Amino acid sequence: MNIKVDLKKNIDDSYDVVIGELQPQHFKKACIVTNPTVSALHLEYLKSKITADELCIATIPDGEEYKNMETIEQILGVCFENRLDRSSYLIAFGGGVVGDMTGFAASIYERGCNFIQVPTTLLSCVDASVGGKTGVNNKYGKNLVGAFYQPKGVFVDPRFFDTLPSREFAAGVAEIVKMAVTFDAEFFSFLENADLRDKENLLKAVAKSVEIKASVVAQDEKEHGVRAVLNYGHTFAHVIESETNYTGYLHGEAVAIGMVMANTLAMKLGKISEKDAARVKNLLEKYNLPTAYGVKDAEAFYDKFFLDKKTKEGSIKFIIPESIGGFEIIKDTPKNIVMEALNEFLA
Amino acid sequence: MNIKVDLKKNIDDSYDVVIGELQPQHFKKACIVTNPTVSALHLEYLKSKITADELCIATIPDGEEYKNMETIEQILGVCFENRLDRSSYLIAFGGGVVGDMTGFAASIYERGCNFIQVPTTLLSCVDASVGGKTGVNNKYGKNLVGAFYQPKGVFVDPRFFDTLPSREFAAGVAEIVKMAVTFDAEFFSFLENADLRDKENLLKAVAKSVEIKASVVAQDEKEHGVRAVLNYGHTFAHVIESETNYTGYLHGEAVAIGMVMANTLAMKLGKISEKDAARVKNLLEKYNLPTAYGVKDAEAFYDKFFLDKKTKEGSIKFIIPESIGGFEIIKDTPKNIVMEALNEFLA
Repeated sequence: MNIKVDLKKNIDDSYDVVIGELQPQHFKKACIVTNPTVSALHLEYLKSKITADELCIATIPDGEEYKNMETIEQILGVCFENRLDRSSYLIAFGGGVVGDMTGFAASIYERGCNFIQVPTTLLSCVDASVGGKTGVNNKYGKNLVGAFYQPKGVFVDPRFFDTLPSREFAAGVAEIVKMAVTFDAEFFSFLENADLRDKENLLKAVAKSVEIKASVVAQDEKEHGVRAVLNYGHTFAHVIESETNYTGYLHGEAVAIGMVMANTLAMKLGKISEKDAARVKNLLEKYNLPTAYGVKDAEAFYDKFFLDKKTKEGSIKFIIPESIGGFEIIKDTPKNIVMEALNEFLA
Repeated sequence: MNIKVDLKKNIDDSYDVVIGELQPQHFKKACIVTNPTVSALHLEYLKSKITADELCIATIPDGEEYKNMETIEQILGVCFENRLDRSSYLIAFGGGVVGDMTGFAASIYERGCNFIQVPTTLLSCVDASVGGKTGVNNKYGKNLVGAFYQPKGVFVDPRFFDTLPSREFAAGVAEIVKMAVTFDAEFFSFLENADLRDKENLLKAVAKSVEIKASVVAQDEKEHGVRAVLNYGHTFAHVIESETNYTGYLHGEAVAIGMVMANTLAMKLGKISEKDAARVKNLLEKYNLPTAYGVKDAEAFYDKFFLDKKTKEGSIKFIIPESIGGFEIIKDTPKNIVMEALNEFLA
């Protein structure tokens, strides 16, 4: 199954997300970027499918705490040592962290070489690998340095789902839930009734999520409008991840908490109903996702919103569900209402 | 005078190069990126023209040897500390080094914020500030890490030419000569007959160079074809700059030598005539530009070509004048002919 990411303003950079068993591909020069965990499980399989006249491998440390410029320099170093050029391919083989960094490295290697995504986590398959957001974290926050840079293709091979630890699996489900809450009530009902641990259901949910993501990115590649809706839950999640040094929660887990917090704010603003907010929370809990967080200092938490990229000219942009399947982007939420919502999560 | 850089594949990113006294502009949040030399001479003037509700200044060390990722981190740090966002403006105020780094910093700051160029050197006015090539050097070579990222505008104010040291002035002339040799025989004749130390002649030459550059970039923003011609002399120059640790020559000086070396190769390939090659050399020497270089080890020099970005799939791409005002891009030059040319420059 192929889903096209059809960039309206940038048709030359349009590409396909291919769902199904990875088909053989051959390159002249390529560098596989991966981490030791994925490499141990799947590198032999990948190399049976992806071949090159000259192939090198950059193995980077596993974990969000290594998503920084030092690791980018490591990837670039491997590429320079192996004399890759602008027509070469970097192959992102791993989860969101590997994908974001490989894409960023490709975007700045000799002012831009090619890259493809072969995501191995559910989260990366349904969200991170599609749409060309690349980057790294720094001491000021998450994904604050990076580029919009599109892959030449995304290849979602369901075989990798079999080896996912259950926490990683659930983290991916959180982003699937995000797509459903904001864009598709019918899809949300499907998720309530289906068990995604069943592979057929999972593939349906992956395809639907990729379709939603691709259609949003096609309309608004650089996030001037509707693409911001994909950040539902993320404004809160980024602060949580920063407060826990990117080690306490998987990204999808932080997003699960963030959606519950965003819904609390939504209820205070008279948007999503208590009943629908409970449906979202129940669905997340069905996959053992965390839905609570102990805010230590609500003022400090609030202040951290302002380092988010989405915070333009000093006003925070919250993505708020009006109902299941409908969103609103709210730019001027009074601080006291946000504080009320945060206070409900005080430790 | 306004010259449009009209990007065919990317019309949203088209912009103007404005030649003439800088007109007042006001921004919400902006960061001026400059160096101590330019700052001492001209910052007060710039601040009388460019104002912002919130204005900060990143002063970076002066010189090509600081054109690296550490300096990029310094610029980004100032932007984060001052909480610039995606709608903010970085203002590149200096020569090519400041412009290339400011543009690169803007391209990766929160996945891309705005920037404008206010070039203060002749070289930057006629070449570097136009066209969106940004980046830094590293231990593998020059401009090997960077992005194609267009400014929102380029503002060429001739007042800065008055304070240029004569070496800096001549370095700019080298790039003007480059445009003429490759694209415009009539312009070359003008340069032979006019003294660019005369301001009226200089402004004519600047405008003509910007026109040529803008038209080339408009056709081929990302250097898949004709834009490579602007690298005439640069393939050699980059090796010279690398061998002299970016401190022996100004970029334009290395390009002057590089054009003479490229012409020597061109003659060996039966392209440019001896007479026309002498005209180019004479014109460069009229501005006291260097035209000789002592190659220590021709094999080592040759080997360094392969780290150049323009070296695709192991074949070096030489830009060779056929005659004054005409070029050829030659991809498969036999090594022995290149070595013959290099041997003429042995120390």
